[in-house]
Amino acid sequence: MTKIRVAVNGYGVIGKRIADAVLLQDDMELIGVADVVADWRIKTGAKNNLPIFGFNYDTVDKMKTSGLNVKGTLDDLLKNVDIVCDATPKKVAALNFEKYKNAGVKSIFQGGEKHELTGHSFVAQANYASAIGLDATRVVSCNTTSIVRMIGALRQSGLFKKGNGVLVRRATDPWESDHSGIMNTIVPGTTIPSHHGPDAQSIIPGLEITTVAVLAAHTTSHFHSWHVALSRPASREEIMAIFEKIPRVIFLRESDGLTALNHTIELMSDLGRPRGDMWEVGLWVDSLTVKDHDLYFNYQVYNQAIVVPETIDAIRALTGIEQDAMASINKTNNAMGIMQGDIF
Amino acid sequence: MTKIRVAVNGYGVIGKRIADAVLLQDDMELIGVADVVADWRIKTGAKNNLPIFGFNYDTVDKMKTSGLNVKGTLDDLLKNVDIVCDATPKKVAALNFEKYKNAGVKSIFQGGEKHELTGHSFVAQANYASAIGLDATRVVSCNTTSIVRMIGALRQSGLFKKGNGVLVRRATDPWESDHSGIMNTIVPGTTIPSHHGPDAQSIIPGLEITTVAVLAAHTTSHFHSWHVALSRPASREEIMAIFEKIPRVIFLRESDGLTALNHTIELMSDLGRPRGDMWEVGLWVDSLTVKDHDLYFNYQVYNQAIVVPETIDAIRALTGIEQDAMASINKTNNAMGIMQGDIF
Amino acid sequence: MTKIRVAVNGYGVIGKRIADAVLLQDDMELIGVADVVADWRIKTGAKNNLPIFGFNYDTVDKMKTSGLNVKGTLDDLLKNVDIVCDATPKKVAALNFEKYKNAGVKSIFQGGEKHELTGHSFVAQANYASAIGLDATRVVSCNTTSIVRMIGALRQSGLFKKGNGVLVRRATDPWESDHSGIMNTIVPGTTIPSHHGPDAQSIIPGLEITTVAVLAAHTTSHFHSWHVALSRPASREEIMAIFEKIPRVIFLRESDGLTALNHTIELMSDLGRPRGDMWEVGLWVDSLTVKDHDLYFNYQVYNQAIVVPETIDAIRALTGIEQDAMASINKTNNAMGIMQGDIF
Amino acid sequence: MTKIRVAVNGYGVIGKRIADAVLLQDDMELIGVADVVADWRIKTGAKNNLPIFGFNYDTVDKMKTSGLNVKGTLDDLLKNVDIVCDATPKKVAALNFEKYKNAGVKSIFQGGEKHELTGHSFVAQANYASAIGLDATRVVSCNTTSIVRMIGALRQSGLFKKGNGVLVRRATDPWESDHSGIMNTIVPGTTIPSHHGPDAQSIIPGLEITTVAVLAAHTTSHFHSWHVALSRPASREEIMAIFEKIPRVIFLRESDGLTALNHTIELMSDLGRPRGDMWEVGLWVDSLTVKDHDLYFNYQVYNQAIVVPETIDAIRALTGIEQDAMASINKTNNAMGIMQGDIF
Repeated sequence: MTKIRVAVNGYGVIGKRIADAVLLQDDMELIGVADVVADWRIKTGAKNNLPIFGFNYDTVDKMKTSGLNVKGTLDDLLKNVDIVCDATPKKVAALNFEKYKNAGVKSIFQGGEKHELTGHSFVAQANYASAIGLDATRVVSCNTTSIVRMIGALRQSGLFKKGNGVLVRRATDPWESDHSGIMNTIVPGTTIPSHHGPDAQSIIPGLEITTVAVLAAHTTSHFHSWHVALSRPASREEIMAIFEKIPRVIFLRESDGLTALNHTIELMSDLGRPRGDMWEVGLWVDSLTVKDHDLYFNYQVYNQAIVVPETIDAIRALTGIEQDAMASINKTNNAMGIMQGDIF
Repeated sequence: MTKIRVAVNGYGVIGKRIADAVLLQDDMELIGVADVVADWRIKTGAKNNLPIFGFNYDTVDKMKTSGLNVKGTLDDLLKNVDIVCDATPKKVAALNFEKYKNAGVKSIFQGGEKHELTGHSFVAQANYASAIGLDATRVVSCNTTSIVRMIGALRQSGLFKKGNGVLVRRATDPWESDHSGIMNTIVPGTTIPSHHGPDAQSIIPGLEITTVAVLAAHTTSHFHSWHVALSRPASREEIMAIFEKIPRVIFLRESDGLTALNHTIELMSDLGRPRGDMWEVGLWVDSLTVKDHDLYFNYQVYNQAIVVPETIDAIRALTGIEQDAMASINKTNNAMGIMQGDIF
Repeated sequence: MTKIRVAVNGYGVIGKRIADAVLLQDDMELIGVADVVADWRIKTGAKNNLPIFGFNYDTVDKMKTSGLNVKGTLDDLLKNVDIVCDATPKKVAALNFEKYKNAGVKSIFQGGEKHELTGHSFVAQANYASAIGLDATRVVSCNTTSIVRMIGALRQSGLFKKGNGVLVRRATDPWESDHSGIMNTIVPGTTIPSHHGPDAQSIIPGLEITTVAVLAAHTTSHFHSWHVALSRPASREEIMAIFEKIPRVIFLRESDGLTALNHTIELMSDLGRPRGDMWEVGLWVDSLTVKDHDLYFNYQVYNQAIVVPETIDAIRALTGIEQDAMASINKTNNAMGIMQGDIF
Repeated sequence: MTKIRVAVNGYGVIGKRIADAVLLQDDMELIGVADVVADWRIKTGAKNNLPIFGFNYDTVDKMKTSGLNVKGTLDDLLKNVDIVCDATPKKVAALNFEKYKNAGVKSIFQGGEKHELTGHSFVAQANYASAIGLDATRVVSCNTTSIVRMIGALRQSGLFKKGNGVLVRRATDPWESDHSGIMNTIVPGTTIPSHHGPDAQSIIPGLEITTVAVLAAHTTSHFHSWHVALSRPASREEIMAIFEKIPRVIFLRESDGLTALNHTIELMSDLGRPRGDMWEVGLWVDSLTVKDHDLYFNYQVYNQAIVVPETIDAIRALTGIEQDAMASINKTNNAMGIMQGDIF
């Protein structure tokens, strides 16, 4: 079988995880990763034996000076791949897109970019089919991905009428030290709805949700608290049965002692996950409550990792190597060890 | 005019603020404050010239040893007062209640105690009249007080149908250092609803609200995000007009640069408030949003101070020195410099 | 007596405190405060009845638009004052200096500026006399001020030989929310010595100290841990007697329950200090240890406030209204309620 | 070759890491891990296919109820092993020690216990030989281990005269959520020296060091800042050459962008280390400074992992399977991928 040849442009929080995930797929080959920095971030890639490329000649020089074995420029890399996963910082991608198109390479962008960039947004479980054969798509952000997984599943069941979510977001990423954090405060957004609701509608048009977002003083992951008005009274069992069937959602239980965001992070590390990643939405099962038409539930979103399996699926969809959504999802999940429902 | 003679039992986060607030009222006299500790917490009271009492003879001895000028025991104090404000730690109060009754002294408890202790719970704006002449009441907790102020006002307007609140609580008080905090995480409650919703019903029976509570990694104050289903479509102006009339609610505006919990805290300090206290609910005006039947709003609750003016009003209600709720509220507000609506 | 007419340029963390401190002095008059912002920060100044000036005409317009009663521009303000306290952000001051000189107004800068700007640096206790009659000086930074107070006193006693200090600094100010913090980490400086040691030498030439500085994940205040090699063996009592005589140093005792930075902050608030300010160095008495030639001690520096009394003294020195250092220090201390040695 | 049969009692932060490290050694066999809990912490062990034992019959029952496949009690486990690594909470170990002795099993304790428990304390690099054939030893704490590695190497070189260290400790472990943290403060110890200095003397008698310890508001790792008085003037190169030869010390460089504790943690995760563990002391190379007789340096201690390779070596020493310290250290380092000196 011919493997899909993949490039990753931008070896940061998301890019390095995509690169590692590509390495785990038997139908893909990682041809190289490109970046603009020459420090520990890219050096670990080299130490892990990834083929390193510089964004341009200047970067290549800088990389060589700092002792890196560089394979060439991003342009060189693009010549040898079928598809590129762009994980560069917000707003840089538009310029890159031209480059990819000129090189005749398909491309996948991340949720920092706008839907309009590619005209298509992607969550595997929701709209895999619509991405097949496209030249480019955007994997939506971590929060939006979680909303599409959870609220999308409810909607598909016919039980969803309307939803309101409060998002308590981590303030910055764990590795950041350059005065990008907030300290001893909450920073609420100044507008309601936050952009997350409308963003979910780029995947599920007409989805009736309103989101409120605040930043809190932690780095570990996002937290969502949802209230959903159901289309008819339902039982807790009925709702649990729906969530149980979502391919990338796991259950966090008080009886297992899992009662805080940092418990889950430690759990994932203990399970041997690379970087302690949780690719699944973590549903706090005990607090899930149904009262007549009203459903309440809380979940955890590990922002650094949740979009990674989605990106892998997007590679298959765009290149058309796999036509069936569930086949790709299962393939990705098996390769990465993604869990579903109860953990233990 | 004979002044009401007041004792404060428990000179901690709440008790010290009640004592200072009593000193500002021209119809009250602070006869003494009692506590069980003999360290800086009570020594500042002495340095501020408050009459200090020990909980019992042992405490009195301990206090004398540490150089404090002690006036006597709590029992001595109770002999000379009309009413005692109990601000002792959660669950200690039940034992104290017997002592107060035996001394023939009226008593006010704080929100850590259960409604059943006194059979009456108090928020000035909502049920002042029902407390007149009672022997004892409970000022509800900071979060519940804020809910009664805000949701109570909506309900009185006839526009309220049903509400859902997500409470992002501070993890511990700013002065605490003895490993009582949480670090770099969110700790969601394991049950929905949290106790706050039912607690508000102790003041407003039948109030249809559901609350979800989480702890976040800051100490500064609580944050609430509410969605209210209105009884009919309303305009933003209509809602603002209701909130504008609540005696202890102020407006926080993005145009004034007030966009985070810690801004408000600094603002209150800058305004010369003792301990930087905010006795008002701080409504984040910009994000208040009305869509047809749906109302969304966020507010800040300064947990260390919001119940203090309520306690002052409760003193007047129980002793019957003032029969009219608004008269007491205005008297308290003037004495303390409490604001309403726009700040600037 | 003619009062010194004072302007404050820059109404931020330091400027607002200087303005309030000037108001407390009976030999000074606050003519106005100037700033470039028009939000809550300056509006609280106006609400507190300070005369407000805009940095330039643009600012004046902006301020008027936002409802402020503006008295004029900084240039207008400078026409009516003898001296200006510059508390503008780092590196802005050099440009301002020209303006002050052209207006024939004496000026005091803060520790963010370099010694070279004015050629004179100031700590009241150390070199008041040398500032008398000068046109300009720089009050050194919070950390340097604390070093000069503590190490300077040791040196004057003849007991000091050499010192090494480790500074654990707060990462950003409590009111900051705009992603200026660090989260869940320590950021050590990449060079030893940090700039604090050399900076202290701008006050005490030849002082043999080496400082190491790190940022920690809190906002409340700085912490110093010092090891001093003494010129001869000394007793603990001898050292304590030296520290007891420093005008702006207080003792924090474990027996009073004061064992963490946040205890002190709460204590200062409880004592009724404006903004909970601690103008004194807080010495952790219990851990002060002397072993033969070696002295170890830890202290706390409240960075937002410690330089404020120094600035007041600098006003007197530059204008020559008071020729004696201790007379000015005592005057300032009495006006502000500054303590010394044991608190209780 | 017969493998050493190892038990781990206490499957917490340290125990789980020891268990995983034992699995990596070709001369050891992990017979089982025992604990008192039945929640996610031990369930991950089971999910990772470790043989699980309960502390006693009650625990076994509790474990079975929660669905765990339990092999037996700790007593059962002890019957089949040569040595047990005790990683139970502080102060529990003394009781366990009797059990181990009665079972005729050698034992290794962790740094929470006192030296007196076993009469021998262990750091591989310093005193491996003295542990050979003993029945029990104590691997010293993370901070003490780091001190012995760094200061011990200096001392062995003959350049060390006297040292002073300031330890900025993390306040609690990353997984803890049960109100064990400190928030927005520093908690300095109330005595100098802290226990770390004397503890290092249990390994290196007569070592002239004084340590000062504070708790800071982060969870990620400890930080040490040292000043060493050298026995003679030395060059920076000379010092670097000493540190370069220490088997478990790595260099963190600003030129690689490694300038904060959280950078290092992320780096270790990126390198594929289990749980992002750093077993090495991380020396901040850029700030290492030598001035005549004075040496200054800062380093990072990852408290969750640094003692793990030491424990592995202690197993070899006690059982006598390897007589040579460096042979054991190298064997451990190779098995675990422990680095030395420059990383890149």
